[in-house]
Amino acid sequence: MITAKNCVPPVEAVIRPTTIIEARRLVNTLGMNITLASETFQHTGSFKFRAAYNVASRVQEDLLITATSGNFGHALAYACSLLNKRCIVVVPTTSAKVKVDAIRECGGAVEFVDVRIKSRERRVKELSEQWPGAYIASAYDDLLVIEGNSTLGRELGALVNKPDVVVVPIGGGGLISGIITGLEEAGAAFSVIGAEPLEGNDAAQSLRAGEIVRNEGEPSTIADGARTISLGKHNWEIIRKSVSNIVEVPEEAILRGTRLLFELANLKVEPTGALCIGAVMTQPELFSGRSVCCVVSGGNVDPAIFANIIAV
Amino acid sequence: MITAKNCVPPVEAVIRPTTIIEARRLVNTLGMNITLASETFQHTGSFKFRAAYNVASRVQEDLLITATSGNFGHALAYACSLLNKRCIVVVPTTSAKVKVDAIRECGGAVEFVDVRIKSRERRVKELSEQWPGAYIASAYDDLLVIEGNSTLGRELGALVNKPDVVVVPIGGGGLISGIITGLEEAGAAFSVIGAEPLEGNDAAQSLRAGEIVRNEGEPSTIADGARTISLGKHNWEIIRKSVSNIVEVPEEAILRGTRLLFELANLKVEPTGALCIGAVMTQPELFSGRSVCCVVSGGNVDPAIFANIIAV
Repeated sequence: MITAKNCVPPVEAVIRPTTIIEARRLVNTLGMNITLASETFQHTGSFKFRAAYNVASRVQEDLLITATSGNFGHALAYACSLLNKRCIVVVPTTSAKVKVDAIRECGGAVEFVDVRIKSRERRVKELSEQWPGAYIASAYDDLLVIEGNSTLGRELGALVNKPDVVVVPIGGGGLISGIITGLEEAGAAFSVIGAEPLEGNDAAQSLRAGEIVRNEGEPSTIADGARTISLGKHNWEIIRKSVSNIVEVPEEAILRGTRLLFELANLKVEPTGALCIGAVMTQPELFSGRSVCCVVSGGNVDPAIFANIIAV
Repeated sequence: MITAKNCVPPVEAVIRPTTIIEARRLVNTLGMNITLASETFQHTGSFKFRAAYNVASRVQEDLLITATSGNFGHALAYACSLLNKRCIVVVPTTSAKVKVDAIRECGGAVEFVDVRIKSRERRVKELSEQWPGAYIASAYDDLLVIEGNSTLGRELGALVNKPDVVVVPIGGGGLISGIITGLEEAGAAFSVIGAEPLEGNDAAQSLRAGEIVRNEGEPSTIADGARTISLGKHNWEIIRKSVSNIVEVPEEAILRGTRLLFELANLKVEPTGALCIGAVMTQPELFSGRSVCCVVSGGNVDPAIFANIIAV
């Protein structure tokens, strides 16, 4: 029997394809063969919609609860609005205002948490006890997140001009593990390198240690999409096998990357979205002589913060 | 006999297709059914490359001279570099620094002119006497410019989701007349509305008078791509027949449009590129109930100017 639930469009039918940008002036300035895959024009302005829609459309529950630095919450709220579901989003009090506003615009309920006092995870646990019928959606550590993000890997795998290497920002690891999964599905043997803020370098430490290493607290990096405590377990299993390098990007390189994308590629990105350009500048020897696809993860940033970054 | 000149790729083969952006939050905020056609990721960051490449590839001369507020000069310099030609670009001393730098990066020679003392046209005339073998390329009033820009009209005419109306910025009128030409070639009967700064409203005045009206001097609008003295003659013949309305956009609406595109569409645009959003806000009654395609003409803007616009 066909029910309404069977008729829900799959994630592939709802997402927008990534925007491929060839930025000659950026290439000339960095002296490297770089193409950008920008998710800034994805629904809700970041790749997170790929994962959020996949989760919200594939679970049975009609109420979803999540903890997030903002973009996943916005994406989940919008996905739920498309699917006639509800969601509660737990965000740190330090989140970008634009991200919080955006969640509310989509009908999502926002719960603030001061992470100096209580972890996001603890607040989610309290809420899950209050709403026992809810699905607790991890922003990164969920097979449905990886599956949603794999759509981007398949897109990159199908590019006409195939890159030698794809650089991907790492927070909880949901994007990079999704991209690896999608590339494998597309039969594309590109090498995949991670880009992580030096200020919260748990993934690079994990790769060196051979096991998940956690940050002591929420990292204070400007790249607010990468302020995660540790990699997700599902993601780690994929990362440990398939990622050879994770570049630890200093804050100054993240800021410079944001400026260069603005000035030389006409691209508005959030600092997390500039991690890959920052990585290329930080360890150029990893990329020299190779064609490089930099994934720009999102573009949602407070105007005041952005103005400060570019007006140097 | 096939010569090297016959082998030059036509403009259609070299340009990038325009970037169609559906910005849900912008649509919700303005309460109008708007799609963006952004030329900010075109070669050299504005639609001008379509015209410049067409001119440079179609004329016999190997040296081109032009007067421009910057984007056409950048585009012509890049087109010439692709075609192994040379160009001299006359720019006002008030031009955005990013535009001047960009011309030089492409190997174009820059000649400054203080437009309070001498018109750009006069300086071009002097240079043409100095270089009698050069082609004097108008940034807007040339059939080859219209032909180059018509590629964008054909793209819009071929959209799957056809708009009722296309809104186009007007400076010298080369873009709007090219788009009208291309739409006609594509058999697309969209209505076309112009968007012009109120501070330099010669096109709107021309439409009312039934003949070309000139601004007294170079307009001081923030929309530096529209600081033209008057419409081109070739363009006027097309505009008078096919444009029903030209919205005169106050400076404040241009600035607000720039901000809204940044905040709600993740799009970095130069002020001229926000004219159409400014037009929709200025005369909403012209657009209400219709599906509207706003052409975003370019994205090249000095970071300091942009930071001031968004940090309000």
